[in-house]
Amino acid sequence: MDVDADRLLQDLRILANFGRKGMGINRPAFSGPDIEARKWLRKSMQDAGLDACIDGVGNVFGSSRNAFSTVLIGSHTDSVLNGGWLDGSLGVVYGLEIARCWLASHPRDGFGIDVISFEDEEGAYVPFLGSSVFSGLLDATVLRTINTRSGKTLEAVLDAWRLSGVPAVRFEPKRCRAYLEAHIEQGPVLETNAKQVGIVTAVVGVRRFHIAFTGQVAHAGTTPVLMRRDAGEALIKFAYHLIEKFRDIAGEHLIWNLGIIALKPGAWYLVPGEGELSVEVRDIDGRTLDAAEAAIHECVNEAAREGNVECRAVKKRQVEPASMDPRMIRIFTEAAKDHGASFMCLPSGAMHDAMVMSQHVPTGMLFVPSIGGRSHVPEENTSTADIILGARVLLRAVELLRESS
Amino acid sequence: MDVDADRLLQDLRILANFGRKGMGINRPAFSGPDIEARKWLRKSMQDAGLDACIDGVGNVFGSSRNAFSTVLIGSHTDSVLNGGWLDGSLGVVYGLEIARCWLASHPRDGFGIDVISFEDEEGAYVPFLGSSVFSGLLDATVLRTINTRSGKTLEAVLDAWRLSGVPAVRFEPKRCRAYLEAHIEQGPVLETNAKQVGIVTAVVGVRRFHIAFTGQVAHAGTTPVLMRRDAGEALIKFAYHLIEKFRDIAGEHLIWNLGIIALKPGAWYLVPGEGELSVEVRDIDGRTLDAAEAAIHECVNEAAREGNVECRAVKKRQVEPASMDPRMIRIFTEAAKDHGASFMCLPSGAMHDAMVMSQHVPTGMLFVPSIGGRSHVPEENTSTADIILGARVLLRAVELLRESS
Repeated sequence: MDVDADRLLQDLRILANFGRKGMGINRPAFSGPDIEARKWLRKSMQDAGLDACIDGVGNVFGSSRNAFSTVLIGSHTDSVLNGGWLDGSLGVVYGLEIARCWLASHPRDGFGIDVISFEDEEGAYVPFLGSSVFSGLLDATVLRTINTRSGKTLEAVLDAWRLSGVPAVRFEPKRCRAYLEAHIEQGPVLETNAKQVGIVTAVVGVRRFHIAFTGQVAHAGTTPVLMRRDAGEALIKFAYHLIEKFRDIAGEHLIWNLGIIALKPGAWYLVPGEGELSVEVRDIDGRTLDAAEAAIHECVNEAAREGNVECRAVKKRQVEPASMDPRMIRIFTEAAKDHGASFMCLPSGAMHDAMVMSQHVPTGMLFVPSIGGRSHVPEENTSTADIILGARVLLRAVELLRESS
Repeated sequence: MDVDADRLLQDLRILANFGRKGMGINRPAFSGPDIEARKWLRKSMQDAGLDACIDGVGNVFGSSRNAFSTVLIGSHTDSVLNGGWLDGSLGVVYGLEIARCWLASHPRDGFGIDVISFEDEEGAYVPFLGSSVFSGLLDATVLRTINTRSGKTLEAVLDAWRLSGVPAVRFEPKRCRAYLEAHIEQGPVLETNAKQVGIVTAVVGVRRFHIAFTGQVAHAGTTPVLMRRDAGEALIKFAYHLIEKFRDIAGEHLIWNLGIIALKPGAWYLVPGEGELSVEVRDIDGRTLDAAEAAIHECVNEAAREGNVECRAVKKRQVEPASMDPRMIRIFTEAAKDHGASFMCLPSGAMHDAMVMSQHVPTGMLFVPSIGGRSHVPEENTSTADIILGARVLLRAVELLRESS
């Protein structure tokens, strides 16, 4: 049993035509191209012999009709604006291809492959909408969420696509024994380490903080440095010391980002009266995130002790780290070895549907290398050899899972 | 001989009605309110007995017709947008009032008071346009300067006000023995030190630098800290170390401002690929400015040694410091003592027409306190007692200058 490399690549190319714009892909959740792609996927699943539907939140679910024990394989087919052709699509097409292989060679096995494309992983309305609803996490209040570009509510767009009366498919714990998601790495680690496959140990947790500095605008020429309440200088000191603390407490994986700085009024000759700073920390260990959060509050207190500028930190988001199932990690390791694939274990610094699913079912994630580490851009790519090898390792993992159960 | 306090205050109030908007003043150079104010001023000068005109760049010049030796007193009557009622106006109305007093008490003296309101000190078209033309510094190319709000050239607006055929009044070195400018301090130093009068030792020089950082945008979650080219972190380090260096080399007066920071793309989860920072330094000593400039280049070199982010500094402006005349400083000191005014010597951190004039004639500057150190805002103010005392000290300085010549 082997994947059909040509068929796999052709499906990826077909999928890339929905919402194609130049080299890139514009297929945000519930856009016309997204729904068209989902209809194509449903048809492809049906052609493969799966029972397939588009459910009430846009998830495309293909179910092995004779199986009573399954592995769920999938990811998402919505994209960011001007994204690339592989983010999400790769894992979904892997699932489709592996289901085809499995059904062809095990037509009447009680163990089967279910396939899913979750809706709105990228958060045009609600990040991880599809996997959250599938696993029963969300409630009806999300229907009032508004897309900032279109101004439409989720409820209105579901109505427009005639999905509002359709039930949502729910995860069946008794049927589903594992969720496996393959994805492009979206970073440079595999390429830098010359590895063909990455086995994800955990999806990092994320905490986001908005830091606000309030001083007093003043004419920079006429206000001596010692008489100022300089929100910009307070921000620079804060950021510098915070980065030092982050370096000190950084475990193997702690990563941070200070992505937004804004000073007001923002003029050559005006001492800034207000400053804003965004701080994001990610780690696979909640205790490291706690330490990072404590460091932020230490820096807030230091700023307060300096006394002449107010400093306030507000937590804007907290997502807990999600460990991948140790048995799935072992199985992926064995599968990679069976194919002679060079591999390494690594955390996922980006969030994925696997993070949601891991709260409900043993979950494993497999990465293939991203050329130049790039993603969410039209240039996003993976070598053909790596795409095919990834599918083979995933199929082998399914076989090992079947054998060991 | 004494100033008429009521007349002085009334003139200031009348002038504040040209371009008044709420509490504030909108009287940028060559706006309708600016020209109306200049016509009122010309008339007021004529009523005071001066020969007065509006010249070819909008300067209002009032000349003592019998004098062969003069002190020129003035400042500017244009304002910033939403500025205050005293910036510039104070020094012009002082000149008008002192000329009136002098002509009343010395009608046939060979020593007289000339009064000027320079045009466009605030730079709606060209900063210090009036004083620069008056002292012969500018050439015809300035006529092509465009106002960024109206889109009009200086030439077009001079034409519109029928000034383009009118000659510009030029400074006469043989006639003019000193230029005296009174101004609000625009900062908190006099108030903080509880002084009624400030005697300016020098107007600071200014150097402005634009610092650009070029790294590589990356997904913050998937790009390990050590693999990044983080323009934001490079900027924070640069700014932090630069401020440290500035503190080390700061003389009594070095002041700096980092007023603008911009990171691109500017998102929580994206490592900044580009950063921009504005650095402005001001000092009365050119050597201190040289040291500050050297510190900037040291920081650029340090950033270059770190290696993964490009850093480039471009000088955008350089204005040399301008010392006030030591004799004028002595005379102001004596005048303040004669009135029992508490006073201190201090540099001017803001630029003034006095900076331009000091290159051509012995120049002195007198400050009155700014309440709360505020200026260029509608709340800009000075106590009535301080306004009156400032005029008396200035008049006394003129008497002392007359006596000592």
